[in-house]
Amino acid sequence: MNLPNLSKRLVAEGLGTAFLLAVVVGSGIMAERLAGGNMALALLANAIATGAGLVALILMFGGISGAHFNPVVSLSEAWQKKLPWSYVTPYIVVQVIGAFAGVAAAHGMFEDPAFFASEHVRTGAAQWWSEFIATFGLIGVIIGCSRNRPDLTPFAVAAYITAAYWFTSSTSFANPAVTLARAASNTFAGIRPIDISGFMLAQIAGAAAASLLFGWLYPPITHDSIQIQ
Amino acid sequence: MNLPNLSKRLVAEGLGTAFLLAVVVGSGIMAERLAGGNMALALLANAIATGAGLVALILMFGGISGAHFNPVVSLSEAWQKKLPWSYVTPYIVVQVIGAFAGVAAAHGMFEDPAFFASEHVRTGAAQWWSEFIATFGLIGVIIGCSRNRPDLTPFAVAAYITAAYWFTSSTSFANPAVTLARAASNTFAGIRPIDISGFMLAQIAGAAAASLLFGWLYPPITHDSIQIQ
Amino acid sequence: MNLPNLSKRLVAEGLGTAFLLAVVVGSGIMAERLAGGNMALALLANAIATGAGLVALILMFGGISGAHFNPVVSLSEAWQKKLPWSYVTPYIVVQVIGAFAGVAAAHGMFEDPAFFASEHVRTGAAQWWSEFIATFGLIGVIIGCSRNRPDLTPFAVAAYITAAYWFTSSTSFANPAVTLARAASNTFAGIRPIDISGFMLAQIAGAAAASLLFGWLYPPITHDSIQIQ
Amino acid sequence: MNLPNLSKRLVAEGLGTAFLLAVVVGSGIMAERLAGGNMALALLANAIATGAGLVALILMFGGISGAHFNPVVSLSEAWQKKLPWSYVTPYIVVQVIGAFAGVAAAHGMFEDPAFFASEHVRTGAAQWWSEFIATFGLIGVIIGCSRNRPDLTPFAVAAYITAAYWFTSSTSFANPAVTLARAASNTFAGIRPIDISGFMLAQIAGAAAASLLFGWLYPPITHDSIQIQ
Repeated sequence: MNLPNLSKRLVAEGLGTAFLLAVVVGSGIMAERLAGGNMALALLANAIATGAGLVALILMFGGISGAHFNPVVSLSEAWQKKLPWSYVTPYIVVQVIGAFAGVAAAHGMFEDPAFFASEHVRTGAAQWWSEFIATFGLIGVIIGCSRNRPDLTPFAVAAYITAAYWFTSSTSFANPAVTLARAASNTFAGIRPIDISGFMLAQIAGAAAASLLFGWLYPPITHDSIQIQ
Repeated sequence: MNLPNLSKRLVAEGLGTAFLLAVVVGSGIMAERLAGGNMALALLANAIATGAGLVALILMFGGISGAHFNPVVSLSEAWQKKLPWSYVTPYIVVQVIGAFAGVAAAHGMFEDPAFFASEHVRTGAAQWWSEFIATFGLIGVIIGCSRNRPDLTPFAVAAYITAAYWFTSSTSFANPAVTLARAASNTFAGIRPIDISGFMLAQIAGAAAASLLFGWLYPPITHDSIQIQ
Repeated sequence: MNLPNLSKRLVAEGLGTAFLLAVVVGSGIMAERLAGGNMALALLANAIATGAGLVALILMFGGISGAHFNPVVSLSEAWQKKLPWSYVTPYIVVQVIGAFAGVAAAHGMFEDPAFFASEHVRTGAAQWWSEFIATFGLIGVIIGCSRNRPDLTPFAVAAYITAAYWFTSSTSFANPAVTLARAASNTFAGIRPIDISGFMLAQIAGAAAASLLFGWLYPPITHDSIQIQ
Repeated sequence: MNLPNLSKRLVAEGLGTAFLLAVVVGSGIMAERLAGGNMALALLANAIATGAGLVALILMFGGISGAHFNPVVSLSEAWQKKLPWSYVTPYIVVQVIGAFAGVAAAHGMFEDPAFFASEHVRTGAAQWWSEFIATFGLIGVIIGCSRNRPDLTPFAVAAYITAAYWFTSSTSFANPAVTLARAASNTFAGIRPIDISGFMLAQIAGAAAASLLFGWLYPPITHDSIQIQ
C-alpha cells in the first residue's frame, strides 16, 4: 500500500481541522446573529452546518491523513495500530495549529478580532459527564463503523456529531484541539479558558474507555497493521 | 460465517439501546429547554437528532448484534429465521436494561434525577392507531430494505423514524423497550406509566401485521438461514 | 431475471403510495398544529418529513414494484420500456386507491374525519408553471439518476422533493394521484377539488417534456428492455 | 470510454445550472415570504433546499456533463486535465445562460418580473474573504473527494454548500455564473450588480489557490487523462 508521505498528511490534517473550526465557529456566529435570541434555532443551524461540513471534510481529506481532526482520535487510532505512534505528536501539533487558524479565519469572515477570550461558562459535573459520553460515543462510532462499514464512516461520524450537539448538555465538543481553540472565540461556540481542563479530562477519559471497550468488541485484525480509514 | 459470540452481541445491543435512549431523551430535554414553548421547533430538533443518532448507532453496532435496539425487531428477525430464537429473550432483557440506563445517562447530562415518572398523557385510539402504523412501517422498512438494499438499511431506518416523529400523532415510539424507559422520564419524551400498555399492544400488533405481510412480499431465502443485517 | 409477480407489485405500489400520503398529510397536520402560524417552520418540517419518508419508502418497496407511487412516473417508465405497458393501468388504479387510503389513515391518526374536501386555493399560472417545473425535474431526476447512478435513485428523488417543496410556489405536488387524494384533506397539505385539473395538466405536460428531453440525453439501452429500478 | 457528445453536455450543463438557480432563488423567495422576518429560519430553509437540490442535480446530470454548473469548477477540471480545454468556453457560456434562465423560471413561479436588479448590498473585505474561503473549500472538496471517494462527490459537494451558507458571512456564492445571475434578482438571494466584481475576484483567487494546493496533495493520475466525474 502506497501511503501518502507525512508532509502531505500534516497539511491535510491541519487544513481539515482549520476548516472544521471555521465551520463550527462561523456557523455559530451566523446563527447567533440571525436567530435573535432563539437559541433552539441557533443550535439547530449550528448542528446541521457542522454535520454537513464534517461529511465534506472527511471525504475531502480522508484519503490523505485519515481525517482525524482530533487528538483523541489520533491517539485511539495509534492504540489500534492504524496510525504509527511516531505520527501522533506531529498530528496533534498541526491539529492544534489548524484549529486556531480556523477560528481566526471564521472571525475574519464575520469582522471579529482574530482571537478574543471566551466568557462562555461551561463547567460542572453534568457537562463533564456529557463530554465523557460524547467522546466515548465518537470513538465508538469510529471504531465500530470503520470495522463494520468503513465506506460509510464519514456519514456515521457526521450524523453522530449532529445528534450529539443536541443530546448532551455541553453540545459535545468531544475534541481537545477544538476545545482549546474555541476558548479563543467569545461567541456562541466559545468556552472560558478556565473551563478547558475539565472538558479535556472528560474527553480523554471517554476516549480511553471507548478504545478499551470497542477494542474488545472489535478485536484488531492482525494481518493489516497499518490502514487508512 | 464467523458470528460474534452472544456476550458481545448482548453488550452491543444493550449499549446501543442505551445510546438510543440517551439521544431521544437528551435531545428532547435540550429541545424543550431551548425552544421556549415553540413545540414545532422542539420536535424538529428532536426528530433530526434521533434520525442522525440512529444512522451512527446502527452503523456502529450492526456488525456485532444486528443493531435491533427494539424487542419487536428481535422477534420479527427470529420469526424470519435471521436470529436464533434462543437469542430473543436475552436480547430483550439487555434492550430493556440498556433503555433505562440510557434514560438515566441523559438525565445525568441535564441534572435531572436518574428516573422520575412521566406525567405526559399519551392515550386514546388515535395514538394507538399511530403506534400500529408506526411499528408496521418500521418492521416493513427493515424487512423490505434488508432484502432490497441491505447496505442501506441504516439510512432507511433512520429516515423512517425521522419522518414518523412527524406523521403520527404519537410521535412514533414504535418500540416497547423505548416505551417502558420513557415512562421513567418526566420530560418532552416521556409517557405516563399507565399509558404504556396501550402503546405496547399497538406496537406488537403492528409488528405482527408487518411481519406477515412483508414475509409474503419478500419470501424467506432458504439457503441463508442465519444472517446479520 | 426473476421479476416479482403482478399481485405483489400492486400491493407494494398501493401500500407505498398510502404511506407516502400518510407522511405528506400526517406531517402537514402535525406541523400546522405545532407551528402556531409559523408557516416557514411548518413547511420545513413537512419537507424534511416527506424527504426522509421517501428515502425509506423507495428503499422498502423498490425491489418489488419499482416504487413509483406516481402515475406519471409509471407512464414515463413504460414509455422508456422499463415497465410493460399492460402494467400501467393497474399501477395507476392502486396508486389512486392507496393515496386515498393513506389520507384516511393520516386523518385517523389525528382524529380528523376520513375525508373532508379541501378549501386550500391553489390555482393560477404561477402555480401551474411551478407544477410543470416540479414534475419536469422529478422525471428528469428519475431518468438521469437511474442511468447514471441507479443505486442512488432513492436519495436523488427524496432530495429533489425536499428541495421542490421550497423552490416552487405550489410546494411541488408533481403527482396526479397525490393531487387527487390531497383534495380530500382540508389541512395544510390540501388542494381544492376545483384546482385539481390545472395541477394535473401541468404535471402531465412536465412529465412528457422531461421524458422527451431526458430520453434524448440518455438514449434507451436496447439489450435490457425490462428492468426494475 | 464512450464520452457523451458536446451538444448533450452543453444541454445538461445549461439545464442543470438553470435548475440550480431556480432552487437557490426560488427557495430564497419562499423562505423570505413565509419566514416573516425570521432570517435564521429563512437561511436554514434556503440552505437545506439548496443542499438537497444539489444532490439531485449532480446525480441527474453528472453522467453527461460532469455537473459542474460553475465556471471555476470547469476551469479547475480543465487545469487537472479532466475536461478538454476546448470545452471550457462553451461550458461557461451555457452555465451563464442557464443561470439567468433559472432565475427567470424561479421569478415566474413566484409572480416576480423575469429580471429585476438586486439592491442587496454584499461588499467589503469580510465578504470577499468569505468568498475566497468558500470557493477554496468547494474546489478542494471536488478535487479531494473525486480522488478519494468519487462515488460520493455529489453528497460531499451538497453537504459542503449547506454548511457554507452558514459558516461564511457572504452565504457562500462560490460561483461566478451564480453570482452574475443573482444580481438580476431583487430577492433574498440577490446581490447588487456593483458588488459582483469583488465576489468574482475572490472566487477566482480561491479556486486558483485550491487547484494549486489540492493538485499537490492529490497529484494527477497520468494514465487516465480525461475522466468524467
